[in-house]
Amino acid sequence: MNYKMMGRLLAQILIVEAVFMIPALIISLVGGEQQAVKGFIGTFIIIAVVAGILLGLCRGGRKGFYAREGMASVAVCWIVMSILGCLPFYLSREIPSYIDAFFEIVSGFTTTGASILPEVESLSKGILYWRSFSHWVGGMGVLVFLLAIVPADEKNSGFTMHLLRAESPGPDVGKLVPRMRKTASILYIIYIVLTILNIIFLLMGDMPVFDAVCTAFGTAGTGGFGVRNDSIAGYSPYIQNVCTVFMMLFGVNFSCYFLLLMKQVRSVLVDEELRLYLGLFLGSVILILLDLRGFYDTLGEALRHAAFQVASIMTTTGFATTDFDLWPSFSKSILLCLMVVGACAGSTGGGMKCARFLLLVKSLKRNIRKFIHPQRVQVVRCNNRIIGERVLENTNIYLTAYVLIVLVSFLLVSLDGFSITTNFSAVLACFNNIGPGLEAVGPTCNYSSYSVLSKLVLIFDMLAGRLEIFPILTLLSSRRYT
Amino acid sequence: MNYKMMGRLLAQILIVEAVFMIPALIISLVGGEQQAVKGFIGTFIIIAVVAGILLGLCRGGRKGFYAREGMASVAVCWIVMSILGCLPFYLSREIPSYIDAFFEIVSGFTTTGASILPEVESLSKGILYWRSFSHWVGGMGVLVFLLAIVPADEKNSGFTMHLLRAESPGPDVGKLVPRMRKTASILYIIYIVLTILNIIFLLMGDMPVFDAVCTAFGTAGTGGFGVRNDSIAGYSPYIQNVCTVFMMLFGVNFSCYFLLLMKQVRSVLVDEELRLYLGLFLGSVILILLDLRGFYDTLGEALRHAAFQVASIMTTTGFATTDFDLWPSFSKSILLCLMVVGACAGSTGGGMKCARFLLLVKSLKRNIRKFIHPQRVQVVRCNNRIIGERVLENTNIYLTAYVLIVLVSFLLVSLDGFSITTNFSAVLACFNNIGPGLEAVGPTCNYSSYSVLSKLVLIFDMLAGRLEIFPILTLLSSRRYT
Repeated sequence: MNYKMMGRLLAQILIVEAVFMIPALIISLVGGEQQAVKGFIGTFIIIAVVAGILLGLCRGGRKGFYAREGMASVAVCWIVMSILGCLPFYLSREIPSYIDAFFEIVSGFTTTGASILPEVESLSKGILYWRSFSHWVGGMGVLVFLLAIVPADEKNSGFTMHLLRAESPGPDVGKLVPRMRKTASILYIIYIVLTILNIIFLLMGDMPVFDAVCTAFGTAGTGGFGVRNDSIAGYSPYIQNVCTVFMMLFGVNFSCYFLLLMKQVRSVLVDEELRLYLGLFLGSVILILLDLRGFYDTLGEALRHAAFQVASIMTTTGFATTDFDLWPSFSKSILLCLMVVGACAGSTGGGMKCARFLLLVKSLKRNIRKFIHPQRVQVVRCNNRIIGERVLENTNIYLTAYVLIVLVSFLLVSLDGFSITTNFSAVLACFNNIGPGLEAVGPTCNYSSYSVLSKLVLIFDMLAGRLEIFPILTLLSSRRYT
Repeated sequence: MNYKMMGRLLAQILIVEAVFMIPALIISLVGGEQQAVKGFIGTFIIIAVVAGILLGLCRGGRKGFYAREGMASVAVCWIVMSILGCLPFYLSREIPSYIDAFFEIVSGFTTTGASILPEVESLSKGILYWRSFSHWVGGMGVLVFLLAIVPADEKNSGFTMHLLRAESPGPDVGKLVPRMRKTASILYIIYIVLTILNIIFLLMGDMPVFDAVCTAFGTAGTGGFGVRNDSIAGYSPYIQNVCTVFMMLFGVNFSCYFLLLMKQVRSVLVDEELRLYLGLFLGSVILILLDLRGFYDTLGEALRHAAFQVASIMTTTGFATTDFDLWPSFSKSILLCLMVVGACAGSTGGGMKCARFLLLVKSLKRNIRKFIHPQRVQVVRCNNRIIGERVLENTNIYLTAYVLIVLVSFLLVSLDGFSITTNFSAVLACFNNIGPGLEAVGPTCNYSSYSVLSKLVLIFDMLAGRLEIFPILTLLSSRRYT
């Protein structure tokens, strides 16, 4: 392992994190929130000390940077970033338990949106802002951000590529442009523009500026932290519909937007993942609408709630306009299944990703064809390109890792004695970075009653889900295999 | 497709089925159970007509028999065998609804043990015998039986091999001896000897002969149909312990017994699947014992129930000595996870199989090593043999098919509005051929309240689970791909 380069990278990440906290500090200063100000300043001091020590210790070293180091770096950066990023919550005493604060910030960075807070309206504005902003920065990835802004002083294309590959969601990167740094910048520009559009549309519905900015952060990162106790339920139908549309927009593979900018409209329209994503959305909304007959006063209301909840779960955002835990069984089951599928690869959403789901179904079909015609060569195509065997193998292995992690997490979490539905949906909601589950972790409840062990398991799940399992598993196994 | 050869095969299977019903008919005749006698005789007539028509239509034809025909034949045979095998239930009016009778016999043949009957003690002895015997014949496979007894008049080794491969559980067949027909005979001899031993041990506990024979059938096939309403709970602790031991014995890969007969004790002791199987059993019993503190009067009683239930679920038998739905959450979650893992490959048990689970974990570890050292060649070993890439690929694809079927079945079944735990455990219990699930399909309940659609979905799951998915999927897709 190239520990020195990893150390320098970590120090840079921490500095970026501190810079990202400045707006929250300003909000707290303006609002006269003394505890929050103390929390942020204490955090700055600790980050400065840690980053200073890292930079001092990690001078020089060799230049090479391999895939396993990219994986491990990303995992280490996310963990340390969370360990220090939750300090404002803890030092300001707004979340008195450190493990709860840690849970909350991991939930923020991983864009999960699962909360241990029974209510959020008593939090100071600065803390609320930092909580929502963690979604925004976690959505696209803080390392991607770093790659986009920092000049490539390390003359090593492997460095950039391995980091980008480890942090970006989906089975496949590097579609956009061959030069990785340019990719990172384009991604962030699209991301910022969409976020600003989201804020503007929310403001047009007379949402307060602070609420609009925080809600847009939660939407853009497909996170789900809100600034009100009832999530989005208390806002107007217009605002709810704006959220539905933008959640869906942020769940689309960003390369589609890039292709639109390049005027390649046709290749966007025939994109199989996008079609699956929109098809699943429409299909689920229609089925839930049929299932909800008589549940709401008007069809329009039912449509608004159904579309919002489906978009929220599919894109793994986790906002809520209604307590879907009260919905009939079939609707809840659809939501549970959508939790697993998730959004598009290359978006800010979580879950298994539509692209992976597509490849799984296609490779299953291919293998049935192989059983029937063992002699014929069978290939899997997606968007008219032949998918390599290595990608298919990794996708199937991904599912294996996914299932094993769900099983083990479910077992550990069930030690706390909650119901099976609670535990199962809690694991799915955290692992797929959604947020609310069902029953005791439903949209009107929170994760605070879980034990410390369960919270650690769910924190692991959130990180493993956001980083797509392998960076975290690589980190855990790196001692044995290197 | 070689429809003529498939037709002849099907006719032979139906004749075997009719012969297997004769003991049940004799029991009914001796007991003076007129309705049951009518049911069996009616069934004989219908089978004779169908088999006669098949034999008449399917003369001649080509000799070749390919893998896909083996797959499709097995699936067709199992379905037709069930369609006609449930006639005694239906014609005797002991199960008045045909779909319920069909569900019950599929549950029998697939060794699931899920029942739609609220109580079984009012059934006639002949019907009860046929119900339990369906487990015994389904456990090892009726085609394997046919291959063992019928002389190979079709001079085609592919014929025997493809059928045996499609019907036998587990990722790997043909370990025993190169000659397939001899394998089939040896399997059945071991099976019969173990069943007789089981009956003797049960009789030594003063169990009535009829009960002992039926219980042994349910144990040998790892099925779970009993002859009493309270399953095994009403019998003595000695009998319960005998059941525990024999359930575990029938969940072992039968090639281990063959190796023991060949005095290759060492290769049995180091068998990785066997070790995993016994390790999971011991580990689960200990964890459940810890979780059940204070739940039963004595430690001995807790141990007996824990061992029995773990053995029953792991081997996918589904007998019960206690209502484990009342157990604490952690214990229930362990049972849910064990449902997925299942028994050993090459046993009569269902589930994913320990061997497959082992290969999944190993191929996952291998891929993590690949991430870390992309240049090195990484192989997966099991019992010191290198496992081929094709086997690993199929194992991973198997999991994909497994997860997709669980998701789709869960969605369809949830249309009936039962709780998520009920539906999820019902799908797992049927797909893994266990029988009882949790809540509304728990050990004291039954499947009768599900709608016809749900019953059909669960019937599909039972068949797909018993035949290990691909024969059924091949059948469904054969029109498109051939």
